[in-house]
Amino acid sequence: MNPLFAKQANTTQNTEEQQVEQPEYTVLIIDDEAEVHRVTELTLKRFRFEGKKIQYLHAYSAAEAKEVFQQHSDIALALVDVVMENDHAGLDLVHWVRKELNNNLCRLVLRTGQPGQAPEHEVIEKYDINDYKEKTELTSQKLKTLMYSGLRSYRDISTIESHRKGLRQVIESTGNMLRSNSLNAFATAVLKEIMNILQIDSSAIYWSTGSSSDAIRSNGRILASTGQLSTDPEIAALSDLPESVQAKFLKALTLKRSFHSEDGFIFYLQTDKGNENLLYIDTQGDLTQGQQEFLEIYCINVALAYDNLLMSEEVIETQRELVYLLGDAVEMRSKETGAHVKRVSLISYKLAELYGLSEHDALMIKRGAPLHDLGKVAIPDGILHKPGKLEPEEWDQMKTHAQIGYEILRNSKKPILQMAAEICRTHHERWDGAGYPNGTAGEDIPIAGRITALADVFDALGSRRCYKEPWSTDRIKAILEEERGKHFEPKLVDLLLNNFDDFWKIREAFPDAGEE
Amino acid sequence: MNPLFAKQANTTQNTEEQQVEQPEYTVLIIDDEAEVHRVTELTLKRFRFEGKKIQYLHAYSAAEAKEVFQQHSDIALALVDVVMENDHAGLDLVHWVRKELNNNLCRLVLRTGQPGQAPEHEVIEKYDINDYKEKTELTSQKLKTLMYSGLRSYRDISTIESHRKGLRQVIESTGNMLRSNSLNAFATAVLKEIMNILQIDSSAIYWSTGSSSDAIRSNGRILASTGQLSTDPEIAALSDLPESVQAKFLKALTLKRSFHSEDGFIFYLQTDKGNENLLYIDTQGDLTQGQQEFLEIYCINVALAYDNLLMSEEVIETQRELVYLLGDAVEMRSKETGAHVKRVSLISYKLAELYGLSEHDALMIKRGAPLHDLGKVAIPDGILHKPGKLEPEEWDQMKTHAQIGYEILRNSKKPILQMAAEICRTHHERWDGAGYPNGTAGEDIPIAGRITALADVFDALGSRRCYKEPWSTDRIKAILEEERGKHFEPKLVDLLLNNFDDFWKIREAFPDAGEE
Repeated sequence: MNPLFAKQANTTQNTEEQQVEQPEYTVLIIDDEAEVHRVTELTLKRFRFEGKKIQYLHAYSAAEAKEVFQQHSDIALALVDVVMENDHAGLDLVHWVRKELNNNLCRLVLRTGQPGQAPEHEVIEKYDINDYKEKTELTSQKLKTLMYSGLRSYRDISTIESHRKGLRQVIESTGNMLRSNSLNAFATAVLKEIMNILQIDSSAIYWSTGSSSDAIRSNGRILASTGQLSTDPEIAALSDLPESVQAKFLKALTLKRSFHSEDGFIFYLQTDKGNENLLYIDTQGDLTQGQQEFLEIYCINVALAYDNLLMSEEVIETQRELVYLLGDAVEMRSKETGAHVKRVSLISYKLAELYGLSEHDALMIKRGAPLHDLGKVAIPDGILHKPGKLEPEEWDQMKTHAQIGYEILRNSKKPILQMAAEICRTHHERWDGAGYPNGTAGEDIPIAGRITALADVFDALGSRRCYKEPWSTDRIKAILEEERGKHFEPKLVDLLLNNFDDFWKIREAFPDAGEE
Repeated sequence: MNPLFAKQANTTQNTEEQQVEQPEYTVLIIDDEAEVHRVTELTLKRFRFEGKKIQYLHAYSAAEAKEVFQQHSDIALALVDVVMENDHAGLDLVHWVRKELNNNLCRLVLRTGQPGQAPEHEVIEKYDINDYKEKTELTSQKLKTLMYSGLRSYRDISTIESHRKGLRQVIESTGNMLRSNSLNAFATAVLKEIMNILQIDSSAIYWSTGSSSDAIRSNGRILASTGQLSTDPEIAALSDLPESVQAKFLKALTLKRSFHSEDGFIFYLQTDKGNENLLYIDTQGDLTQGQQEFLEIYCINVALAYDNLLMSEEVIETQRELVYLLGDAVEMRSKETGAHVKRVSLISYKLAELYGLSEHDALMIKRGAPLHDLGKVAIPDGILHKPGKLEPEEWDQMKTHAQIGYEILRNSKKPILQMAAEICRTHHERWDGAGYPNGTAGEDIPIAGRITALADVFDALGSRRCYKEPWSTDRIKAILEEERGKHFEPKLVDLLLNNFDDFWKIREAFPDAGEE
């Protein structure tokens, strides 16, 4: 038994609790004479509709009937007396059911002992009733015919109505799925919506062969799981699933179609782009034809949305690589080979988060930061690679890289590149105003510039350069403390020093070539 | 009158043609006695249901009734005689309608003159009929009551059924919309699907304020148009629309809600991300409540899909800019400032299309080509910027840029970057095998390399370089002809020379700085 799914053993218990009840039809008898109730029920004692028993409800006045209608939305047929509280209490009730309660599903049959009070030709035209009977004409047989007639209509209407509701749910579920903007959020939404569509609350797994991410196992990945099959999609692989589920997935991949098994439903779904998705749902019994149909309809749109999302993730990941690549290309010239660009990005992101920036802003900084030294493309080799100290005029030329990077990027309308432009321009400004190119100080320096300034220096201090060895952590801490409020914003230095180990781990996770 | 919409003037003609007919209910009388038909219709002569006339159809045998049923899917109620061709012809007919024809909407009322042949208690239970009447009990009033009863049931069922169908259409339309992967294809699909949902064929416009593209007017853009409002979304602006439509759009933007006007429906839709979408539909009359509801339900998902697509386009455009930027950063060092990178990309794309590559492959080449000289980041300034001829050992170092570019990119799993790696490695190979780094020849050189090799040289010949002036078109044509089958694949040279003006236009559209 895989510990990830230890709870799985309890599934049978659940199924036993859910005793499948034979659904009944509900009929409401409304009459102020108790005798009518008694005789009606006696006559229909053995009456069954499509093999199902009838549940009888009773109301002895129109007022009482209203209460019953409000408590039971599933009344199939009501036999309505006319004269009760007053001469037209039954007629008023009919009007109330249709117009106030807005119940158009229940079949209403008027059954009157005083047709003089409610003449058939007037009443049938004026009120939205489904039949009109005088008590005298209602022989035992005619009462049964009336029951068949009413219940059949109700059955036909409620079949379509429940289909309509199912489709409505499919549409709502499609919307909820479209709201998610990551693959895992999407898959989680899909599982949740499937439970809504099937109107069950059970265990399920969403597994996909398709993938755009490098980090993914070649044999697919679990996108989402729920109920007793819940597991962490980040770490779980197909082999972590209960063996019975694994076997079913492999069978579906071979058959290339969905199928029912004794304990669940395997849904196989191939997208337009050829990705194969598998859903296992612990259905605790067979799915009805309607449930299967809704599931299929829903999953057509799931497959389409999945393809779109996958394409979108692919593009986003390519973009991320391109930014690193652009940063690397620059670093490669300045011989600062290695993962400096990536580390500055991750360190900046962590600082931004700790600083309290929104997730959106933190992400923008993370994506823009790798380009901080873009302007160095224009700095001659002689200056960039000079092992010794730069002459004043060389140093002046070196400093132009901040403005040049900004100039390269400033015309872009893309938010990420605008952010990168700002970072290029401001990552050598200092909190005390002694930086370049503009000598801005304090909060006049954009927060993205203040953050990348610290991240850049922090990472460089710990790295080997053509002009220096890597510094020890103690020496780094000391210099940062010293530059607190001078080179760097005090709050940022505090955040870094208070979480020093976390930041150091980022360095260790992405070492430069030649370091371990 | 704006010439783009000259046809608009004819709209009224259309509306006159479409005479709105009062819908009727259809009732089928099935009886082998002509007299029964005559009396039934006479009795119901003035009968109306909800103010609507009844259309009566007649069948004088079960066989004839089957034909009528097959021709008319909208029969609300059928009065069915039992004894016709044989003792149970009417009963067999009922069975056929429900089980063979699968018509569960039509209300079937048995009307028999010989109840002995079809006893009520048996028949009502066994056959899926909606009522059982002996001809003798059917007084004029009882016949009318029967009509009310049957038509009301049919109305209730068909109302839900048409709602169900509408929702089904919404789901299908959602799927069709999710299949489109560009904004314009998406908007076109949305308009088409709206016509399907409303079951009309008319003129419509989809306009959006939201945008991710640089090329878009600040006041929004037309995403799609159809019918008499058809226009080219690439060139049309809001001000090109008929004034009446413009006025309605502005009103909807002010009210921030949908509204009906005398000649159409304006649908206002604000997405979760704040983009405002407007649809104008020439509805040729009022929309029913159902139509409006379906439209609203559909458009919720339209808005969600729109946001997703917009985000995706934004990312794709950022990616494109990044690739150019990376290429530019390299070019900037080698002083080949200007649009060389962009032109090589566009020229390669056009060559790939003419060569007969798939759109997908052509796009991959287009996106990878800007990085062809990526490896030059590692070439020292002294070699890269040398105005004169390179010494043999300098030239050897220069040539390493092909392999270096490949090395930088080869580890990426992203298709675009894999393509770029291949282009880096092979864009200096020659058709005759005398190129570098590997000296591959002919079709052993990947097509992407053969294409970018030609595009790169063609563009360089027409440009100013530190070591040369731009060449004339005649001289370029001559050298390409000379290198046909030597440096370049003959087929590619032919394609370029046969379409020389088109390729030259790409050069002119993106000139280098300092050229006009």
